[in-house]
Amino acid sequence: MDSRVMRDIEELKQRLRQFAAERDWEQFHTPKNLSSALIVEAAELLEHFQWLTAEESINLPPETRAEVEAEMADVLLYLTRLADLLGVDLLDAAERKIQRNAEKYPAHEVRGSATKR
Amino acid sequence: MDSRVMRDIEELKQRLRQFAAERDWEQFHTPKNLSSALIVEAAELLEHFQWLTAEESINLPPETRAEVEAEMADVLLYLTRLADLLGVDLLDAAERKIQRNAEKYPAHEVRGSATKR
Amino acid sequence: MDSRVMRDIEELKQRLRQFAAERDWEQFHTPKNLSSALIVEAAELLEHFQWLTAEESINLPPETRAEVEAEMADVLLYLTRLADLLGVDLLDAAERKIQRNAEKYPAHEVRGSATKR
Amino acid sequence: MDSRVMRDIEELKQRLRQFAAERDWEQFHTPKNLSSALIVEAAELLEHFQWLTAEESINLPPETRAEVEAEMADVLLYLTRLADLLGVDLLDAAERKIQRNAEKYPAHEVRGSATKR
Repeated sequence: MDSRVMRDIEELKQRLRQFAAERDWEQFHTPKNLSSALIVEAAELLEHFQWLTAEESINLPPETRAEVEAEMADVLLYLTRLADLLGVDLLDAAERKIQRNAEKYPAHEVRGSATKR
Repeated sequence: MDSRVMRDIEELKQRLRQFAAERDWEQFHTPKNLSSALIVEAAELLEHFQWLTAEESINLPPETRAEVEAEMADVLLYLTRLADLLGVDLLDAAERKIQRNAEKYPAHEVRGSATKR
Repeated sequence: MDSRVMRDIEELKQRLRQFAAERDWEQFHTPKNLSSALIVEAAELLEHFQWLTAEESINLPPETRAEVEAEMADVLLYLTRLADLLGVDLLDAAERKIQRNAEKYPAHEVRGSATKR
Repeated sequence: MDSRVMRDIEELKQRLRQFAAERDWEQFHTPKNLSSALIVEAAELLEHFQWLTAEESINLPPETRAEVEAEMADVLLYLTRLADLLGVDLLDAAERKIQRNAEKYPAHEVRGSATKR
């Protein structure tokens, strides 16, 4: 495995596909299992913040910062692996979701309010 | 908001930053709150799979497939927004995590086994 | 189904067992699926708090309070159903866990600190 | 801390209240934080099942079984602590939820189907 920096999510998909194939892990990578693994990583991320105040959660000590970054990477890995299995283009899906949110939450109507619609 | 397709995560960061600024939502977007929002979306994703068999989770009906895609987008949105706030380069972090996993799980040692190390 | 108040977790186990049997839902109630359903309910609980400040989370408006209560009930239902399937006595397990925590976190050593051990 | 077995959830509430007070942990136990801690424990529970088949999730090896039990206890501890803070009677809430579910999912209509309503 070389150390070149990844260019985009498509390349990440390829890398994860190869990683799973080399280990015969495709059998475990059902969408059901991957979405479980994803939420487990999301919880490991949240765990770093669970007892912190809002202010503390912004100014993390370097060691916590590094662990948080690793958990965020794990979330992205499982999300990307799932996207590969289901044939989802994540940036396209994000684009569509932002447009839907823009219609649902017009800036002039929701300014300063976090109420869900 | 135009309809051009996003090119990369950096552009997504910019879009989400602007989206939050226009709505005065920065006050809610602490790392603590965003990691909560992220796990809530991860749960909405998992909910689609919770009673399905492994096989059913691969062959989703079109409507479920579209909802799953939207939930995956939500996970990416909050993950990217959090990355922007903490100054994390997600693809770099993913690269480092894959390399760490490659050392932790050498292919010839873990083939076909899902046991955590 | 009568409206008598439940006396204890054992009675809740019986009620849930009957509820599942009447609907032929035992086939879905594997420990794997139930622990997914449990975390989905835990997320619906968390969702009510995700954008709130600590102070706001204590003083909930009545409607939110009722919804929070219903989500807490859902967590208990799935936890109890899982306990029934795995033959776990939840209060015994809680007792053992509290004793372990008391050894791990002696009051005089950890006072006022939320650091995990 | 004596070793007597707990009789009910009310006693568990008292024990947890005392445990928090002795450690000056009330400051961390906001509903917002406790619901985060609860979902983190729910994820640690799910983690044991994430790569297992349905069948494997029923027949756990003894060591996994013990760990699963400890995670289930953690979920109950945080749920009970939250119930104490919000003044929720968990068994009452469970009773009400079962009755609502019975109306929403009449046995003769939903037999053998896991479709959400």
